[in-house]
Amino acid sequence: MSKVANEVIHRQLNWRYACKKFDPTKKINEADLNILLESMRLSASSYGLQPWKFIVIQNPEIRKKLLPLSWNQSPVVEASHLVVLTYKEKMDEPFIDRHMQQTAKVREVEVASLARLKTSIMGDLVNGARSEVINWWAQRQTYLAMGSFLITAALMEIDSLPMEGLDPIGYDEVLKLEGTGFKTLAAIAFGYRAADDKYQHIKKVRFDLADVVEIR
Amino acid sequence: MSKVANEVIHRQLNWRYACKKFDPTKKINEADLNILLESMRLSASSYGLQPWKFIVIQNPEIRKKLLPLSWNQSPVVEASHLVVLTYKEKMDEPFIDRHMQQTAKVREVEVASLARLKTSIMGDLVNGARSEVINWWAQRQTYLAMGSFLITAALMEIDSLPMEGLDPIGYDEVLKLEGTGFKTLAAIAFGYRAADDKYQHIKKVRFDLADVVEIR
Repeated sequence: MSKVANEVIHRQLNWRYACKKFDPTKKINEADLNILLESMRLSASSYGLQPWKFIVIQNPEIRKKLLPLSWNQSPVVEASHLVVLTYKEKMDEPFIDRHMQQTAKVREVEVASLARLKTSIMGDLVNGARSEVINWWAQRQTYLAMGSFLITAALMEIDSLPMEGLDPIGYDEVLKLEGTGFKTLAAIAFGYRAADDKYQHIKKVRFDLADVVEIR
Repeated sequence: MSKVANEVIHRQLNWRYACKKFDPTKKINEADLNILLESMRLSASSYGLQPWKFIVIQNPEIRKKLLPLSWNQSPVVEASHLVVLTYKEKMDEPFIDRHMQQTAKVREVEVASLARLKTSIMGDLVNGARSEVINWWAQRQTYLAMGSFLITAALMEIDSLPMEGLDPIGYDEVLKLEGTGFKTLAAIAFGYRAADDKYQHIKKVRFDLADVVEIR
């Protein structure tokens, strides 16, 4: 059996919680960090376009600057790692071309053979009706990657705190994102829980399965 | 060791692909279906509000009606299962109250003790600036749940096809969602790949890690 057992998955889905207090002495090793980043890099996205960039903040000075922009949530400075999830605000021809070039390289085909695909993506996301709301489209895709990260971390027994409650404009300034085409969407603090994080003992609140699932 | 090994996770992240042709004779069993639904039910969401409903379509007649609304992608009728992900279009007081009641029940506290939390959520999502774009907020949360599902399925070696390219208004009509407060966002066909699905052999196209991750 190469797959992961149902009971292990279910246990780890329940193990995950939004960690509010991390142990600042416990650090994630490089191998684990790599898997977590891979879980986002390998995530699904619409057309496979990956309209995102993930910024891992190692510098304690930068993390200190982000703290007041994050409702002073201590994980911003105390968790082993902090990653800021940014999204590509607009789809444009250079970005689509870059994806076409990567596709051609990985699949060993000519870029010219992808012309129809490019035309269809351009007509939808760059020049079509969806271009008006493309920032929201990119945000949704980036949340797919965030979902991958949170589950992957739980399977690895790495604690995380997804943070939507932050000042994205303030983050953009600190991270000097102006002119890059990318904007701050959310962040994830991750590492290992403090022994006295009381939230680890509080029951997860979810609607009952019958309230969120309908069978037709 | 109770956690899942890095190499298993990495292998399964790479194992996943957007399956374009399913084996219609292979069905997902109830236990597996339950874990997949749990992966969405237990997903993180902003404030833990879970602004979603997941509709599993078992009825072949309904699936036939959804086919032309889904670019005629055969997995809509051929995959073992189809789940439609819908989001709550607006946050309103009854929805927040329902969440407060569930919180009180699960954590065995008085609803009255959650009054401050309720006021703060109402001020943000129902009456605050974010209420103007609350449909997008709910869509993002629902994509978190979708991300959970896709990774969970991959770990279970269950194939999936996430579908954003569908006619959400047509879906809403077929599923009679008008008046429910929920709207179609995306769907996932899932089951087991057909032996001759050529997409399983095509290399996954992703930007290099150095292109999507920055270390600061």
